[in-house]
Amino acid sequence: MNDFEEIIKKLIDFRNERDWEQFHNPKDLALAITVEAAELLELFLWKQPEDADKEKVKKELADIFAFAFLLADKYGLDIKQIILEKVEENGIKYPPEKARGTAKKYNEL
Amino acid sequence: MNDFEEIIKKLIDFRNERDWEQFHNPKDLALAITVEAAELLELFLWKQPEDADKEKVKKELADIFAFAFLLADKYGLDIKQIILEKVEENGIKYPPEKARGTAKKYNEL
Amino acid sequence: MNDFEEIIKKLIDFRNERDWEQFHNPKDLALAITVEAAELLELFLWKQPEDADKEKVKKELADIFAFAFLLADKYGLDIKQIILEKVEENGIKYPPEKARGTAKKYNEL
Amino acid sequence: MNDFEEIIKKLIDFRNERDWEQFHNPKDLALAITVEAAELLELFLWKQPEDADKEKVKKELADIFAFAFLLADKYGLDIKQIILEKVEENGIKYPPEKARGTAKKYNEL
Repeated sequence: MNDFEEIIKKLIDFRNERDWEQFHNPKDLALAITVEAAELLELFLWKQPEDADKEKVKKELADIFAFAFLLADKYGLDIKQIILEKVEENGIKYPPEKARGTAKKYNEL
Repeated sequence: MNDFEEIIKKLIDFRNERDWEQFHNPKDLALAITVEAAELLELFLWKQPEDADKEKVKKELADIFAFAFLLADKYGLDIKQIILEKVEENGIKYPPEKARGTAKKYNEL
Repeated sequence: MNDFEEIIKKLIDFRNERDWEQFHNPKDLALAITVEAAELLELFLWKQPEDADKEKVKKELADIFAFAFLLADKYGLDIKQIILEKVEENGIKYPPEKARGTAKKYNEL
Repeated sequence: MNDFEEIIKKLIDFRNERDWEQFHNPKDLALAITVEAAELLELFLWKQPEDADKEKVKKELADIFAFAFLLADKYGLDIKQIILEKVEENGIKYPPEKARGTAKKYNEL
């Protein structure tokens, strides 16, 4: 069992002990990810870019990961693989020579 | 190098080839996670809970993971550890005997 | 017909001409507001606080308002009244003498 | 003074009494709208589309409106006008005869 599988097993066990699978449809999991992302974001509200509380960031980030892992599991996705595939795809959308040093979106490069 | 380290290395290499570290402060990374989470969410808009396009879900989920990995790296966080710690913490907030079968928040249990 | 009623009438007419009421349940309207809010937010991603494109801000803000008006209408809420009530409530949570010049949340004042 | 102007005046007075203008740059206002939108969204998490608590919806919606009004004011935008303009624009993107009864995005019609 690799790290990803171990984490997902923990999350699924936690969920099943509480009989929560009934709530975990893909739409609500996506909704939960967004809600947690916004809770992370709130830690930066009205603040300088570096001034969030690291302990709180840690917890909100953990929540985002937890729901993202559960949604990936729902669709039978291999997390490492989908990230590496997306990096490759983005490499085509953002060629280094055109994208270097600019924050423009690929359709504006 | 474990899976997490390998993914982070790929993401950092990708970023550095484009000289994007200057944009990747914690606040904008949190903002990027939220933006990607909402793009995932949009795939479910006006739809039944199971009716999103799996191929698109895969890509949006990969984007969320990518920025979440980068933010974790920014703060030197060990992703596996923060998730497992949060699961444990949630186990106290949501004891199985009180939380079973209900979607209530811990402060309403 | 006041301005709010006139705007809501326009939005409802638009919706009904397309037979979209079937999609506009409260949950999806809340989801739509969040999706539009994140599209607004994306205009500021990787940028300085003042550097978004005003023309694009205008359009995303209009979308947020449109769905917020439709959700308010769904619940029969008077927009002016709920804002003024909330301002009053916030006045108690954030007394000027304690809240002046600080961005802290009311529970940290 | 019309309703919009009256609301904006109340919000600005509230802000100025607390010396908060320093925090209200456009980026953080957009961030605040998203945070409030996600708090609204959370009221629907794990629930059926109609099952949110109306009293709580009212408060979150008021918060969204408040920050949206403040951002509109920041850019000198006339709220009624930008909504009506966007409705017109959407009327072209979503012609009734093509959009009727479907939740597809305009680029998929």
